[in-house]
Amino acid sequence: MSIQDKFSKLGTDNAPGQEVRQQSSDLNTLLRGETLPGVPVDFSHGDVDAFTPTPGAFEIFADGVRRGGQQAYTEYRGASRIREELAGKLAAFTGAPVDAANGMILTPGTQGALFLAVASTVTRGDKVAIVQPDYFANRKLVEFFEGEIVPVRLDYMKSDAAAGLDLDQLEDAFRQGAKVFVFSNPNNPAGVVYSEAEIRRIADLANIYGATVIADQLYSRLRYTDVAYAHLRATGINPANVITIMGPSKTESLSGYRLGVAFGAPKLIERMEKLQAIVSLRAAGYNQAVLQTWFSEPGNWMDERIRLHQAIRDDLLKVLRAADGVEARAPQAGSYLFPRLPELAVAPPDFVRILRLQAGVIVTPGTEFGPHSANSVRLNFSQDHAAAVNAVERLVELVGRYRA
Amino acid sequence: MSIQDKFSKLGTDNAPGQEVRQQSSDLNTLLRGETLPGVPVDFSHGDVDAFTPTPGAFEIFADGVRRGGQQAYTEYRGASRIREELAGKLAAFTGAPVDAANGMILTPGTQGALFLAVASTVTRGDKVAIVQPDYFANRKLVEFFEGEIVPVRLDYMKSDAAAGLDLDQLEDAFRQGAKVFVFSNPNNPAGVVYSEAEIRRIADLANIYGATVIADQLYSRLRYTDVAYAHLRATGINPANVITIMGPSKTESLSGYRLGVAFGAPKLIERMEKLQAIVSLRAAGYNQAVLQTWFSEPGNWMDERIRLHQAIRDDLLKVLRAADGVEARAPQAGSYLFPRLPELAVAPPDFVRILRLQAGVIVTPGTEFGPHSANSVRLNFSQDHAAAVNAVERLVELVGRYRA
Repeated sequence: MSIQDKFSKLGTDNAPGQEVRQQSSDLNTLLRGETLPGVPVDFSHGDVDAFTPTPGAFEIFADGVRRGGQQAYTEYRGASRIREELAGKLAAFTGAPVDAANGMILTPGTQGALFLAVASTVTRGDKVAIVQPDYFANRKLVEFFEGEIVPVRLDYMKSDAAAGLDLDQLEDAFRQGAKVFVFSNPNNPAGVVYSEAEIRRIADLANIYGATVIADQLYSRLRYTDVAYAHLRATGINPANVITIMGPSKTESLSGYRLGVAFGAPKLIERMEKLQAIVSLRAAGYNQAVLQTWFSEPGNWMDERIRLHQAIRDDLLKVLRAADGVEARAPQAGSYLFPRLPELAVAPPDFVRILRLQAGVIVTPGTEFGPHSANSVRLNFSQDHAAAVNAVERLVELVGRYRA
Repeated sequence: MSIQDKFSKLGTDNAPGQEVRQQSSDLNTLLRGETLPGVPVDFSHGDVDAFTPTPGAFEIFADGVRRGGQQAYTEYRGASRIREELAGKLAAFTGAPVDAANGMILTPGTQGALFLAVASTVTRGDKVAIVQPDYFANRKLVEFFEGEIVPVRLDYMKSDAAAGLDLDQLEDAFRQGAKVFVFSNPNNPAGVVYSEAEIRRIADLANIYGATVIADQLYSRLRYTDVAYAHLRATGINPANVITIMGPSKTESLSGYRLGVAFGAPKLIERMEKLQAIVSLRAAGYNQAVLQTWFSEPGNWMDERIRLHQAIRDDLLKVLRAADGVEARAPQAGSYLFPRLPELAVAPPDFVRILRLQAGVIVTPGTEFGPHSANSVRLNFSQDHAAAVNAVERLVELVGRYRA
């Protein structure tokens, strides 16, 4: 593949946060009616001014700066002191041991971990099973490393009892030779959590076919009332074949510090560290200190954060479900809503741009997450509650205005 | 190339900062004499406790945190406000315009910039001209992307009037089809600065052969008395074919914030941003704020910093040159010394480990920088002055003890 082709596939024009680089001059002929007033809401990512970073994060960063050279320069895989402290917490959370010395790497955000994990397992021509829909970087990473994507469908609207992964298709993918399976749990964008039966079957299939699984569990702490969560790494999968990725960027609103962690198979972690050495050296040294706040939040801070998100979720679902032709499954975890919109008179990408222009509402187009999601949009509802409700009301109004 | 081969080439055991992961149990049979007392010095990187970060860096970071969401989430290429401010400063420093909107990207460290630049220009089978010796990541990055290295010799001991690049070999490399040339100026590890004639010839050759040049100018601010410096980007090279990389990690001691910048050809910067979106999203948002201190240091802070480094350089050179069989060219910029040691009775990698064990002195082995540098070691002399002098005295004593 030529380098031109490689990069032309790597589009970011519709990626969250990149809207400022779009032109909108050609939309005028499509517009219907007036602009809707209201507080602009950027649903492409969470609002860390509405849900602020973990208390004490800045102070512990400041301590890191005071610590000087030993905090600025760490092993490429991150400071051993911080890894050791974190390993115990992650083992407790996921229900399986974590090897701080050899089975863990700190990265610049979970994006950094995902990049290193895919780069360490996928090379030209390798078949990789990817869920549709799922986080757009999964697909882009496999394409960048010239792997071949074998899609596995997630029918997240089918039943509330499971995420809806087509397990037969997953087995087919392994049978066809897929050596790696990458998925996010809870699913990004749909917010659905894989059932224990699904996770057990994924583990069994990975064991049978000797496949490596990269489990992106970025949102696995923000779980709503009565949602059970099965950690793949604690479900009988061969520990040499699984990498789990987490980080404090979302629920904990620490994205501005760019921190993530990957843990699992030492052989793969070693590759990831070798690569990190030439990609970015390490997660910023002072920032690593902030990981000490993780899983050590004060009192019932996390419970309260979950409660507030659940309340926003419920209110947004009411607005969406009251709208003619809009379908939405309730997310079980995380802060993404992925409603399916009815047929519109304008193309989905144009509707997304119109939303921004006429309603001050930024969403991420469904096409970013898979080829069958053109009629859906993703909303990160970690926002000011009232502003989010009003913004979704405007979205619904424009859906009505632009219906086919 | 299999993924095993790809990663087995990516060794980091001898990389700076990774010494803690080495075993030393097998050295005992080689040891001669007693351990030398003295303050341990880690010359593998600068000591940010001896030369502390730019005044005000932490406070401006704190302002960034207070700014909240708009500082945490920026475009992948970095906050436009910060890019705009920086573009003027970099244009003034390098003597050619910088396009803040389309010709610049902020990255996690200069390592991040170098990774993205190589990834955006080199793909499988591409020939890439690489200087020997030069920064080890240049070689590793080309190997990772399965490019083919065409070495170009730097005879840095030849003359004080030039860095010593073999320009005929460079032209040969281009003639053989090298499409990219990567080099650091000042050279890492040798600390030599390319003469204006060398830079002009590099520009001419790049123009004639249509090659892209990635110029790593990380240390270009720390220049000693009466050293002239020619910026490649201001020397007639086709602006569509050059990327310049800088950052405040070294001279300014801001490595703990992981900040770098690449500027130049918009087409390449665009690729770099697309890739950054799946590698690490962005340089940590809050950290980006710290770039506001760059090129805006108080009063004569930078002059004083240069003066102090020059004094250390001169004292270390005296110790090294007084030692029998040790050769060292005076670095013209940056804080690296790259002395050539005489033949020893132990293999060079063992000597490096012995130095650590018996003298408390950590250096980076010359083999990291090229195949012809096995007898050299690199010292980053941005250290406490007295401790550095004593450490180099211990190094010299062990050279004597282990001579062949």
